[in-house]
Amino acid sequence: MEGELTAAEHDLAHEIETGTGGMRLDLARRLAAEALGTAFLLIAAVGSGIMASRLSTADTGLQLFENAAATAVALAGLILMFGEVSGAHFNPAVTLLDRMLGTISTRDAALYIAVQIAGGCAGTVIANVMFELPAIEVSTKTRSSSGLWIAEVIATVGLLLLIQSCVRTNRTGVLPFAVGGWIGGAYWFTASTSFANPAVTMARTLTGSFSGIAPASVPGFVAMQVIGTVIAFALVKFFYPHPRSESASA
Amino acid sequence: MEGELTAAEHDLAHEIETGTGGMRLDLARRLAAEALGTAFLLIAAVGSGIMASRLSTADTGLQLFENAAATAVALAGLILMFGEVSGAHFNPAVTLLDRMLGTISTRDAALYIAVQIAGGCAGTVIANVMFELPAIEVSTKTRSSSGLWIAEVIATVGLLLLIQSCVRTNRTGVLPFAVGGWIGGAYWFTASTSFANPAVTMARTLTGSFSGIAPASVPGFVAMQVIGTVIAFALVKFFYPHPRSESASA
Amino acid sequence: MEGELTAAEHDLAHEIETGTGGMRLDLARRLAAEALGTAFLLIAAVGSGIMASRLSTADTGLQLFENAAATAVALAGLILMFGEVSGAHFNPAVTLLDRMLGTISTRDAALYIAVQIAGGCAGTVIANVMFELPAIEVSTKTRSSSGLWIAEVIATVGLLLLIQSCVRTNRTGVLPFAVGGWIGGAYWFTASTSFANPAVTMARTLTGSFSGIAPASVPGFVAMQVIGTVIAFALVKFFYPHPRSESASA
Amino acid sequence: MEGELTAAEHDLAHEIETGTGGMRLDLARRLAAEALGTAFLLIAAVGSGIMASRLSTADTGLQLFENAAATAVALAGLILMFGEVSGAHFNPAVTLLDRMLGTISTRDAALYIAVQIAGGCAGTVIANVMFELPAIEVSTKTRSSSGLWIAEVIATVGLLLLIQSCVRTNRTGVLPFAVGGWIGGAYWFTASTSFANPAVTMARTLTGSFSGIAPASVPGFVAMQVIGTVIAFALVKFFYPHPRSESASA
Repeated sequence: MEGELTAAEHDLAHEIETGTGGMRLDLARRLAAEALGTAFLLIAAVGSGIMASRLSTADTGLQLFENAAATAVALAGLILMFGEVSGAHFNPAVTLLDRMLGTISTRDAALYIAVQIAGGCAGTVIANVMFELPAIEVSTKTRSSSGLWIAEVIATVGLLLLIQSCVRTNRTGVLPFAVGGWIGGAYWFTASTSFANPAVTMARTLTGSFSGIAPASVPGFVAMQVIGTVIAFALVKFFYPHPRSESASA
Repeated sequence: MEGELTAAEHDLAHEIETGTGGMRLDLARRLAAEALGTAFLLIAAVGSGIMASRLSTADTGLQLFENAAATAVALAGLILMFGEVSGAHFNPAVTLLDRMLGTISTRDAALYIAVQIAGGCAGTVIANVMFELPAIEVSTKTRSSSGLWIAEVIATVGLLLLIQSCVRTNRTGVLPFAVGGWIGGAYWFTASTSFANPAVTMARTLTGSFSGIAPASVPGFVAMQVIGTVIAFALVKFFYPHPRSESASA
Repeated sequence: MEGELTAAEHDLAHEIETGTGGMRLDLARRLAAEALGTAFLLIAAVGSGIMASRLSTADTGLQLFENAAATAVALAGLILMFGEVSGAHFNPAVTLLDRMLGTISTRDAALYIAVQIAGGCAGTVIANVMFELPAIEVSTKTRSSSGLWIAEVIATVGLLLLIQSCVRTNRTGVLPFAVGGWIGGAYWFTASTSFANPAVTMARTLTGSFSGIAPASVPGFVAMQVIGTVIAFALVKFFYPHPRSESASA
Repeated sequence: MEGELTAAEHDLAHEIETGTGGMRLDLARRLAAEALGTAFLLIAAVGSGIMASRLSTADTGLQLFENAAATAVALAGLILMFGEVSGAHFNPAVTLLDRMLGTISTRDAALYIAVQIAGGCAGTVIANVMFELPAIEVSTKTRSSSGLWIAEVIATVGLLLLIQSCVRTNRTGVLPFAVGGWIGGAYWFTASTSFANPAVTMARTLTGSFSGIAPASVPGFVAMQVIGTVIAFALVKFFYPHPRSESASA
């Protein structure tokens, strides 16, 4: 079916186009983009959280407002920065859904997810150091309740459906701003402040600041994000059964 | 007249294109998009209201600011998510105006409105549950005065005229951001915080939180929204008598 | 010179296109768009000012933030709503510059300015009534100092140069968002909170609320706006001597 | 290589196109755009900082939020205003990177940087005067620590990579909004509030207000910005080795 090459066909097409050497360079470039982009995303999310909690000491809501706005515009910029290189996933849930839709190979998906997690952790450490906090401080902020779990499912479904509705109708030009804005809003309308991203969830265990999450709360969040991905897959297939043409997911 | 097929012609065109079986699936998909989109809209409006009133306890204005910003970006995302499927009405006033302009059949309009109300109510319940409030708590917040009624007329006229001015000049690409921003602004510049949507008005009776409205205030609000729709119809016919080409309202 | 038809040629072209009867209807439509759009602009600016000062009682800065954000997104929406009808001037300074550039006739410019002022005053009254204030209350807020006057020159130059740089390079598609954002920002970075619009300045004498200006302060503001328009004319001719093609100013 | 004319070829092409007289006028226009644009940028950054610290006295975070939002939308407007004239650099780091990439001649780059600094200083003075502060007041705000220096490297790398990723993939249409948003966000997620611009850094020594920086802190900031530019150059060459076609950097 158009737009749904098998992963092997996909790799082959790439190989023919670029030659094996070019392909290796291309893959290196894509993985570097995912790592650096996810690192920047965590610098933005964690860094603005630290700044907000230092400057707006009187009102937690105002802190979250500042944190959400900064993350939103940063994410838009990052998708523009790396979308044309790697698709700008920065999120294992996005990559997993692409794998389920057949637009990335299993090997590439695994590599994407690995570098997203590594990049995200590096980004948190950089944010800590930049704000002169301990490089790594394990968060003790427990985030665990049925409400938060429902929230993570909803947040993940919304994010993935938004991305794929743009990708599968060839409207990727607006995607950076749409996704940035959506995440900024979802900080507010989901009870969990919308992590919706396993790499971000793991990386945020490494800061004792505003944005942290205790390691014990991670499995629950990631499980809900995976469930959200599966639901999003079903909804994408239902609402957009036929992508209009093959286009890079972004 | 171009762009103003009768509803029957409209249905026929659809039927020829898709076959009866395809048409039924297509209608199911459109109704699901309206239901799910309106549910998400209420999750965003009610959820961010709850979050804001919990976190920014000292300043009602800041609460409304947070609530408005989150709703604005969420609405932009939702129109992108479902616009290509159902037109992303999420609002009986939008559907009613489309019916008056002849771009949707009476049967489809009735079904749209029914699922918008059902989806909206479901969204409110989900928001309540996600924030660990009672699933349904009937609001006691009376919203009833001549100022609020004028406000709902203005809010509805502005929203509908904005939508149709984009649709009838083939500029639907900017519509998601324009409509999201407009609604976020109208939270502030109308005395009623701009409900401008009968499904949203009804659904917000089901929460005792920040965004609630007492059931007794609903008929006044809905009546003003209908009056606003009629005025918007006249203004659309005056300002944009000839749509440039037929395009799906979004 | 291309893009700079004399006003008479401009009127003639219109007449040929539409016939005299059509032309009169077209002019009525354009004037109605200017009146209604300017009314909505004042509803947005004055209304959100009232809402902000009622809800955020503790912090004048937060009031201005809310007021600026609401005005920005409303203005973007209004330019989309009426840009294709009348060019969405809503501002005698914009119309005057168009006259100086030869893209509107003297008669039409005079009519535009008259209905902008009338529409703006009506909008202020509607905002007052909607928020259950006296329909007309003459402002006593003096806004008069050399700093404010410099500010109005800067604000007007910036606004007009932004509009014409988009118009004369055929980038009117981004203009609604650019102009809305610019005005929202200029509320903050000009000492006068950027009126930059004689119709808005006059209309805001009619409210005793947050956004009001004392009538005695109007002549100074309007004089600076006219000076700003003349400077903007010189800068437009210097930076963009040749419009790329004739396009409606928006 | 396409898109990488040597500087001499670049100048030659210009000369052939415009004639020597036209070329001199063209250069004057470009330098005026850089000077005026950078002046406006400082008016926006410094002016909104003064307004914010006067109006929101209780919360430094809210001041920065207002300052960042105003700067973001102003920068977007300024890039639209002058991008088609000079490329809208407003920043010696942007110009230096263009020189390293070979898309501007050494002479033009030197002139750009000179007028950016002069324009920026003029803008700060205008902001001071407009807000009725001393025209020049040397800042005593020390900004010097390892955290701030790391922050300036990150801020510069991010900004330059964002610009070039849009330029080298022919997506300059979204660049004004992307760059404006990114800078607004970076005020929050970098410990230094993201100067990322040597001309802005120098110009901000001339105000005793919110946005000031002590002259003694300038060399450290500028050094880090230059290091960031070198890193950005390497990343641009790695991620975007071949620009899709020659296009003006904006």
